[in-house]
Amino acid sequence: MRVVVPYRVRDPKTRLAPVLDPEERVAFSRAMLDDVLAAVWGAGRVPEVLATEPLDADLPDPVAVDARPLTDAVNAVLDAAGEPVAVVAADLALATPAALARLFDAAGEVVLAPGRGGGTNALLARHPQFRVDYHGASYRDHLSACETIGAHPVTVDSYRLGTDVDEPADLVEVLLHGEGVAGEWLRDRGFVLAVDGGRVGVRREGE
Amino acid sequence: MRVVVPYRVRDPKTRLAPVLDPEERVAFSRAMLDDVLAAVWGAGRVPEVLATEPLDADLPDPVAVDARPLTDAVNAVLDAAGEPVAVVAADLALATPAALARLFDAAGEVVLAPGRGGGTNALLARHPQFRVDYHGASYRDHLSACETIGAHPVTVDSYRLGTDVDEPADLVEVLLHGEGVAGEWLRDRGFVLAVDGGRVGVRREGE
Repeated sequence: MRVVVPYRVRDPKTRLAPVLDPEERVAFSRAMLDDVLAAVWGAGRVPEVLATEPLDADLPDPVAVDARPLTDAVNAVLDAAGEPVAVVAADLALATPAALARLFDAAGEVVLAPGRGGGTNALLARHPQFRVDYHGASYRDHLSACETIGAHPVTVDSYRLGTDVDEPADLVEVLLHGEGVAGEWLRDRGFVLAVDGGRVGVRREGE
Repeated sequence: MRVVVPYRVRDPKTRLAPVLDPEERVAFSRAMLDDVLAAVWGAGRVPEVLATEPLDADLPDPVAVDARPLTDAVNAVLDAAGEPVAVVAADLALATPAALARLFDAAGEVVLAPGRGGGTNALLARHPQFRVDYHGASYRDHLSACETIGAHPVTVDSYRLGTDVDEPADLVEVLLHGEGVAGEWLRDRGFVLAVDGGRVGVRREGE
């Protein structure tokens, strides 16, 4: 089984712009990638990065570069793989080896870990005809794709894999549940939980 | 083990007011409660409802009424229980017997299922001194409470238990992943997924 982690190098995490400047978004995005790669290693697998541009990473294989949109780049990997492929989003800052092991070890021709808002945060394709479509409500579309090709889909019920980090509110999750460098990075930059009238958000100390 | 489901009878789910009128919020909230109760039954347990006002429910025991705030009402149950108590939020419209079984069967003196934004959506207290505090970042506070009383906390990593339904965006989750009457209720009222520029929300047909 291959484990592919797609990664957008330029101008990442634009929806975090209200709380992080462009350089910070690059650094935070990289910290999340490093946490995901560490979790894949921790689950006993060798991660591969599929990046939109060249990138330095301490991995056995050089980072593959494909500048096309995510769906096309991942499907090119699936076209050529000839073996099961797991695709794990690079912004799963809560991912742990145990959570990923549930994905990797689940039975099923296609294993899906849904994300908030209809996304597919991680998947494992064992069926040779399965292809991804990340646009829109991809979880629903991936279930339909399974039906079309006669593949049996299985869902992994994981809060950690279901939490991708896109918006300022998502930083709460990283501060509370992150076990890697992304949470540390936020704390080092002064981010703390802000409890206001029962709702929980983040604020930056001194702001 | 007792399984208690706290339920607010009057003016429930106020944050859904942008998309549901007051009567609809009552009906939808009740549909979610019924889904949670069915999931508890499905996991082989007998649910008890702890409501803020009298309520009809088809349960072996009459619905307990406690008009106090959630934290006080639940702690009164824990004070008197003398046995393990699980507390499951009534708005976990994605709960399934399998997801709840992971909570009920987890080892640990205190078992916590975190919810988005720092909440504690479900818990199981086997330690006699554990008490809840639902205000603010309750997950963090419950971990601290465990440390104070020397209890060993265990976390259940479940997307289904981590998804409570408070805001219009949460209805996406019910439409996509709900397996009970709450999702049906939404579909009957014309709610469908709305995919707009990659983000997924809900809209009501005819609106």
